Amino acid sequence: MTDKKVRLGIIGLGAEGGMYAQFLAEGRVPNMVIGAICDTLPEQKAKADAYGVPFYADYIEMLESGDVDAIVTTVPHYLHAEMGIEALKRGIHTLLEKPVGVYTKQAREVIEFAKTKPEVKFGVFFNQRTNPLYKDLKVLMESGELGALRHTSWIITTWWRPQGYYNQSEWRATWGGEGGGVLVNQAPHQLDLWQWICGVPKNVFAKCAYGFKRDIAVEDEVNALVDFGDGATGTFITCTNDMMGTDRLEILCDKGKIVVDNSKQVTITRLSQPEQVLSVNMSMEEVSKLFMGQLDTSTMMTTETKDYGSVWGAQHCDVLENFAAQILEDAAPLAPGEDGIHGVRLANAIHLSSWTRKEVSIDNFDEDTYMAELNKRIAAEGKFPTRS
Amino acid sequence: MTDKKVRLGIIGLGAEGGMYAQFLAEGRVPNMVIGAICDTLPEQKAKADAYGVPFYADYIEMLESGDVDAIVTTVPHYLHAEMGIEALKRGIHTLLEKPVGVYTKQAREVIEFAKTKPEVKFGVFFNQRTNPLYKDLKVLMESGELGALRHTSWIITTWWRPQGYYNQSEWRATWGGEGGGVLVNQAPHQLDLWQWICGVPKNVFAKCAYGFKRDIAVEDEVNALVDFGDGATGTFITCTNDMMGTDRLEILCDKGKIVVDNSKQVTITRLSQPEQVLSVNMSMEEVSKLFMGQLDTSTMMTTETKDYGSVWGAQHCDVLENFAAQILEDAAPLAPGEDGIHGVRLANAIHLSSWTRKEVSIDNFDEDTYMAELNKRIAAEGKFPTRS
Repeated sequence: MTDKKVRLGIIGLGAEGGMYAQFLAEGRVPNMVIGAICDTLPEQKAKADAYGVPFYADYIEMLESGDVDAIVTTVPHYLHAEMGIEALKRGIHTLLEKPVGVYTKQAREVIEFAKTKPEVKFGVFFNQRTNPLYKDLKVLMESGELGALRHTSWIITTWWRPQGYYNQSEWRATWGGEGGGVLVNQAPHQLDLWQWICGVPKNVFAKCAYGFKRDIAVEDEVNALVDFGDGATGTFITCTNDMMGTDRLEILCDKGKIVVDNSKQVTITRLSQPEQVLSVNMSMEEVSKLFMGQLDTSTMMTTETKDYGSVWGAQHCDVLENFAAQILEDAAPLAPGEDGIHGVRLANAIHLSSWTRKEVSIDNFDEDTYMAELNKRIAAEGKFPTRS
Repeated sequence: MTDKKVRLGIIGLGAEGGMYAQFLAEGRVPNMVIGAICDTLPEQKAKADAYGVPFYADYIEMLESGDVDAIVTTVPHYLHAEMGIEALKRGIHTLLEKPVGVYTKQAREVIEFAKTKPEVKFGVFFNQRTNPLYKDLKVLMESGELGALRHTSWIITTWWRPQGYYNQSEWRATWGGEGGGVLVNQAPHQLDLWQWICGVPKNVFAKCAYGFKRDIAVEDEVNALVDFGDGATGTFITCTNDMMGTDRLEILCDKGKIVVDNSKQVTITRLSQPEQVLSVNMSMEEVSKLFMGQLDTSTMMTTETKDYGSVWGAQHCDVLENFAAQILEDAAPLAPGEDGIHGVRLANAIHLSSWTRKEVSIDNFDEDTYMAELNKRIAAEGKFPTRS
């Protein structure tokens, strides 16, 4: 450990940036302090003054000021990648808010650029990866104890957002300003966790509903069916219009099953032997019993239930602390920047499948067609310039 | 009420047919008795003798004997439709086991033929429709109280079947003998209930795994994503290889949500107003509260939980009793024969989508392509003749 503290430049003092500033000001991140604050709204200077830190209206000036060792980008999604490149270029450690880009091309640009600067740390703000529940599942799945994946489904419809939320700003829930709806704003956490724990799917077929129950251009409802190869499949369901939202994740493997309710309770069932072995070795007498409801399979499995609490804000502080530790002590990264592309690619592929009504390859994702289709929607919307 | 009892001819005295015979012999169906029993295995005559009823090796002979008013077909799936037509032709009331046909063409043939015999009753054995839980859901959804459907998902993986089950007979789990796996044998009940309660989807995209974790030619794993039109969607997941099976049905509507666990517990949440009205009328202050975790939405909804027991066999007796009542008193049918096509068509469409890796129309289902693809598989298997 060192007494040195990383000086963080916060770009964008909105709801999220303001929260990080407050956490740092309260000393909740032992190895990090606010270095400076940047916002395009001049009236935010008062808050920087209150924290006793320099204020910049131009983020490039802040990057070149010598006031910051690292930055975090709490700005509209389209800006993450370009701000990341400008920071990395200047040797400033870069923690990008998710998504690292709105489209894979943009995400790849910043990820490729970061590779040319191996001495500068580059991370993505996947705070859910610090959630002990999901960390434990990641360890369990990686250990191989439950065997190969067979099927997984996540219904994550707790992202309820009323119309007023969408009416807050011009860029929100637009193609040109945000590049999507629930897939790019709310669900990226689960799109990351799902792939982090279960693996990256090979292809996807999806149905989205755009402006379904909200007056918005983008998707407020998503159903995706993915294929992990070798017969393993999964479904991912999310929306922002279910006031009584469900959060239920199931992961079925060769040797057991995980069920997570409300991101709080985990039920793990472990089979005494791989399911196929139990299946093949079952006698005809046992098969008959099964049909008379007399077969007791409980001796072939054990079930464990764990409850996890949650401390609001702790996740965000943990991400900041880990990022500072990477800089100060070369600690292992929680979410390396390049991991950010998986969620972006899956979200893009879900959009593209729903637009083309065809199954879309994730392995060989056609990012040019995606860009062309996205630009069509940005142009039709007529509020923001198209992208290249 | 009348004292007259319907004399039922049971075609096929296997596990299912034997169970019906026992129920009737025990007097569990007040308006029905065994009229005769038919089986191709001569050794089954002893059982008919024990019940004191005539035995036939040839079902046509039984149909023409004058011993039966009605029949039920507990025989391999491919035979249901042709036996139905032969019975209807002779004025014998016909209760077909599900599925009414293995493919829609076959199902349509018997359904069309039945229309030419309006005086003869024609039903399908969907015993789950007598389950009070699903009957209540049907009434609730039809009442319009919860408003239009938005989304539904059913994970029904409690159909675990070990390898020994599949090894019991030559025709089981083959293309030529059974015409499919979990979709035609186990899940037809849920395919029927789902469409009975939520409506008939317009199209489907599906991924099935054939012989995935069992040594069989047909599917033991199914993922289907359907579209009901107007943005309403659904997912249906089933398999026979999950020993720790899940049975969870969700139905989200404009004014509430239904969650069913294990076909036993129903949780109904009713919104005080349609969700879109609550969304639009929410003040910015309330939106801010939502993000600070301080918004109390509980005043906008009420939740009711109901537990349902189950009496094994009661469902089957109820179906037989209703069918007899249709014959004797022209009672309203529980499951008219023509309803049988919905489950068959959806199962066929799921197969076809998984084979072609394309979305398939259910509205305008291409049954010729389906037949051609099915026959390819029957021919490759080389155990049974192809179909036409």
